[in-house]
Amino acid sequence: MLLSALKRFLIGQPLKSAELGEQKLNKTKALAILSSDALSSVAYGPEQILIVLVTISTVALWYSIPIGVGVLVLLLALILSYRQIIFAYPHGGGAYVVSKENLGVNAGLLAGGSLLVDYILTVAVSISAGTDAITSAFPQLHPYNVDIATLLVVAITILNLRGITESASILAYPVYLFILALFILIGAGLYKGMTGAVSPDMHPSLGTPVAGITLFLLLKAFASGSSALTGVEAISNAIPNFKDPGPNNASKTLAAMGLLLAILFSGIVYLAYAYGIAPKAQETVVSQIASQTFGRNYMYYFIQGTTAMILVLAANTGYSAFPLLAVNLARDKYIARMFTIRGDRLGYSNGIIFLSIMSIILIIAFKGRTEHLIPLYAVGVFIPFTLAQTGMLVKWVREKPKGWLVKLTINLIGALISFTVMLIFFITKLGQVWPVFIFLPLIVYTFHRIKRHYEAVGEQLRITTCEPAVPIEGNVMIVPVAGITHVVENSLNYAKSLSPDQIIAVYVAFDRDTEKQFQEKWADWQPDVRLVTLHSHYRSIIQPLTKFIDTVEHKAKESNFRVTVVIPQFIPKKSWQHALHNQSSLLIRAFLLYRKDLIVTTVPYHLKK
Amino acid sequence: MLLSALKRFLIGQPLKSAELGEQKLNKTKALAILSSDALSSVAYGPEQILIVLVTISTVALWYSIPIGVGVLVLLLALILSYRQIIFAYPHGGGAYVVSKENLGVNAGLLAGGSLLVDYILTVAVSISAGTDAITSAFPQLHPYNVDIATLLVVAITILNLRGITESASILAYPVYLFILALFILIGAGLYKGMTGAVSPDMHPSLGTPVAGITLFLLLKAFASGSSALTGVEAISNAIPNFKDPGPNNASKTLAAMGLLLAILFSGIVYLAYAYGIAPKAQETVVSQIASQTFGRNYMYYFIQGTTAMILVLAANTGYSAFPLLAVNLARDKYIARMFTIRGDRLGYSNGIIFLSIMSIILIIAFKGRTEHLIPLYAVGVFIPFTLAQTGMLVKWVREKPKGWLVKLTINLIGALISFTVMLIFFITKLGQVWPVFIFLPLIVYTFHRIKRHYEAVGEQLRITTCEPAVPIEGNVMIVPVAGITHVVENSLNYAKSLSPDQIIAVYVAFDRDTEKQFQEKWADWQPDVRLVTLHSHYRSIIQPLTKFIDTVEHKAKESNFRVTVVIPQFIPKKSWQHALHNQSSLLIRAFLLYRKDLIVTTVPYHLKK
Repeated sequence: MLLSALKRFLIGQPLKSAELGEQKLNKTKALAILSSDALSSVAYGPEQILIVLVTISTVALWYSIPIGVGVLVLLLALILSYRQIIFAYPHGGGAYVVSKENLGVNAGLLAGGSLLVDYILTVAVSISAGTDAITSAFPQLHPYNVDIATLLVVAITILNLRGITESASILAYPVYLFILALFILIGAGLYKGMTGAVSPDMHPSLGTPVAGITLFLLLKAFASGSSALTGVEAISNAIPNFKDPGPNNASKTLAAMGLLLAILFSGIVYLAYAYGIAPKAQETVVSQIASQTFGRNYMYYFIQGTTAMILVLAANTGYSAFPLLAVNLARDKYIARMFTIRGDRLGYSNGIIFLSIMSIILIIAFKGRTEHLIPLYAVGVFIPFTLAQTGMLVKWVREKPKGWLVKLTINLIGALISFTVMLIFFITKLGQVWPVFIFLPLIVYTFHRIKRHYEAVGEQLRITTCEPAVPIEGNVMIVPVAGITHVVENSLNYAKSLSPDQIIAVYVAFDRDTEKQFQEKWADWQPDVRLVTLHSHYRSIIQPLTKFIDTVEHKAKESNFRVTVVIPQFIPKKSWQHALHNQSSLLIRAFLLYRKDLIVTTVPYHLKK
Repeated sequence: MLLSALKRFLIGQPLKSAELGEQKLNKTKALAILSSDALSSVAYGPEQILIVLVTISTVALWYSIPIGVGVLVLLLALILSYRQIIFAYPHGGGAYVVSKENLGVNAGLLAGGSLLVDYILTVAVSISAGTDAITSAFPQLHPYNVDIATLLVVAITILNLRGITESASILAYPVYLFILALFILIGAGLYKGMTGAVSPDMHPSLGTPVAGITLFLLLKAFASGSSALTGVEAISNAIPNFKDPGPNNASKTLAAMGLLLAILFSGIVYLAYAYGIAPKAQETVVSQIASQTFGRNYMYYFIQGTTAMILVLAANTGYSAFPLLAVNLARDKYIARMFTIRGDRLGYSNGIIFLSIMSIILIIAFKGRTEHLIPLYAVGVFIPFTLAQTGMLVKWVREKPKGWLVKLTINLIGALISFTVMLIFFITKLGQVWPVFIFLPLIVYTFHRIKRHYEAVGEQLRITTCEPAVPIEGNVMIVPVAGITHVVENSLNYAKSLSPDQIIAVYVAFDRDTEKQFQEKWADWQPDVRLVTLHSHYRSIIQPLTKFIDTVEHKAKESNFRVTVVIPQFIPKKSWQHALHNQSSLLIRAFLLYRKDLIVTTVPYHLKK
């Protein structure tokens, strides 16, 4: 009762299935909830480029401008091609569905598997990053990093269990505040530049020759910068969460997200270049830009605060996309069916809870230091990116719809760039990225195992298979008894009322005296019920009992009799009292049910005090 | 299978009940196993006295001699009076039984409760102390203190689960090595003193006047020194573990333990005085004595090593005494009956496991720093000491056996000193000792609650109560069905074979279409079985189902029909596959059994692949 009241308080009253429509998102809320991952990467994406370039010299930092342009091209290609995916697959599922339908099952499972893992990594990485931002501001909280991160995951989980519209309403403010904050920052920075407050001496001019620059290094910088594009695919997975017409609304939201991401990304890259900012271990690039633009005044703290918030909220994108992707995989029987069940508030609560548990495990296992999971996470995004674009390519070639050459070109460019980025990741960061070669095959293998199991079950249960049921010619009932009590009486009366062909009471004795005594008492009390006494040398009840039941069952099978074990169980009034009684009946029940082909009947006797 | 093989490997093959006699202890082993707690206190008891005295001045250290004599008197009184208890109560139970029989139930429960808690503290405190000794020798292990302590508890638990004779055989060596080590130390120290190698200038002469000494301080030093006597009562609890004749063997073992304890204690106290040793934070008194006697050679390390071992093994006394005390309390129905069950190797495994879990919890909760539990632990010993002696007093006055005046005098002295020590603890260390005022009443209250519950249950189950069983006039069977499958067919056939008065199949639908479809299919498939379809707005199966069952049950009760819920359950071949299926039948079963007065029958359908 207490637990259920607590659940109601945290999650809210259950919703009727018919209220599903009301739980759908309009574009403003969807943008907030589904793009927080992509937008938050602006806070670290540009920095990743600079970190690679600065290893040569600060002069090399001007390369961030052409590399930034490259990232924007990739962004454009991804947005356009995911727009095509949204219309082609209006029921969502994104990379998984696209790859499965066009490239075959294994490609689909590869895409689906990497995305599932990726959303878990999204949650763990972004919550850890957000926690770091918080504890950097309040260093006395630093020892509690893992606890704070775990609490944040729990809080986001509760919000998501309350339902997506409700969480969207709460989470939209910080996202839009972050966008506002960065717009102000970029606007103020550009204004400063135009009024001449930023001298050209602060940065190397574009095209300055740089000694020691290599293509490898530039590609590495480009790949690092592309990590700002993680999260772009989330909208295509989550179309079912949009208000009707889903695909239209989703594509408009995608366009808005692309535009915002492009503006914020180029703004930050440009300002970092203009101010000649080099990455520092103790201060983020965004923080440097903000303090150069405003000094450390309230605007600076506004920007830092909203950045910390968006990093935490990026996790929420995982919460929106993971359960829907899981539903798609579960409907195809590649993962457990429970992921298709809607919870009290119509969200797919099993997916939400699974995601939380996995990410909490990651946070605890890595003690909140999940930064070195980032390359793994980025490569896990570009695998499905590449597969999805290639899938679309194949689709256009196969179907050749009106204007297919344009569509083909878009997806071709997307596929080529995604593939290149993926390759660069594998080449330049193999040391951090190798685990995908182990866990992706493992995941795909598990998917197949699960599917095979579901299909075998379905086949065995289907009533059309011709194997006729074994007819039941009679019933034997075995009643294990522990004494001469009302509980036993109650069970015996029940067994008698069903008039089986035979009732056998079984008593397990630990020594000969008790055995004899019991037999005598029984003969007085229930002379018409056959009593079998068993002797236990090792003080175990289950062992002699199952041995006896085996014998009975063996005989019964010969004449098509069914064996039912009738277990007398008394049930105390209060639950703490259970601990005071041997749970032998529980053990017997579990043991018999799973190991043997027996019917187990529990006859409860409720105590009144 | 794997688990049970692991269990066999760790614990050994199960023993027959008839082999109980072979599991009993001879005196040598019993001394080792039951006196390790008392003997180990020699390693810290004398130090406790010096720590109090040195707060005045180093001159005051000579008072350790008269205080030591006082402790020896108390030891003598305790040994003599526990000897009397052993013969008066040859079945063991010690302070609990003595107090209960002579002073009333509550006194007994107070004694029993404090001893139970005390044995848990013994294990936690001595394992922590032993771990400290180990990690002092290997400082690089220091961060793993809690892990090492936990592992040690687990190791001792496994030894004890293997059976007491086996653990005694292994654990006897270190105990006797420790005794040997201290004998050599004391012998060498005395020899040095006699050969004049110890100058009288090293220590103040006895009787030197000391400024600022108070009675309060001396009493505090005495009480602290008395903590060396914890563990003296263990033998009286454990008489059933002795080879026949138990009481004789136990009393001889007790005498041997008393003698050893007296020699070791006085030796250490005297040498500490003779060398003029003051307690140091970084080095124990025994270590100081050893290094002054031998220098830091191999003998020094032999003494230090065996001391560390005996500290760990002191825990084992708790393992011998706790389960036997628990059996006594459980037989009287004050704690759960499970404590009376002998495990595979004839030890009371539930008591052993409970003790381990509780002490691991304490170790983890206090992060291995359990020193400040020592006063609590000491006071928890002197409460039952006092009660037991007072109980014996009352017994002698009441029964007046031959020579009762001598016996009375012994117990009177014991009771008075124990009571005084207890009072001193309360007065001088109230800040550390106050929790007993909360948890002891709580424990006694719980004991009574449990007893009342067992008595109520017994009364309700006893067949002699005149309430006649309600006759069963007929049976209704409800079969929840989830589809048209072999599993359902199997259950329906079973229900039919018992020919109840009515069979009702119940189907819970989430929307109207499925509901209608199912009704049609059912009418084709099982036209003779009545189908009831229920509609669930909130996607819950249990809620509408229980509501329906309630209605049926209500009607059935009017005409004395019994309601059986027949649950079809298919059982996958491998256990990992369970996770892939909704565990609704499990939930339904648990829910129905505990909340309602229904009979629950599970009909398994075992999948073949």
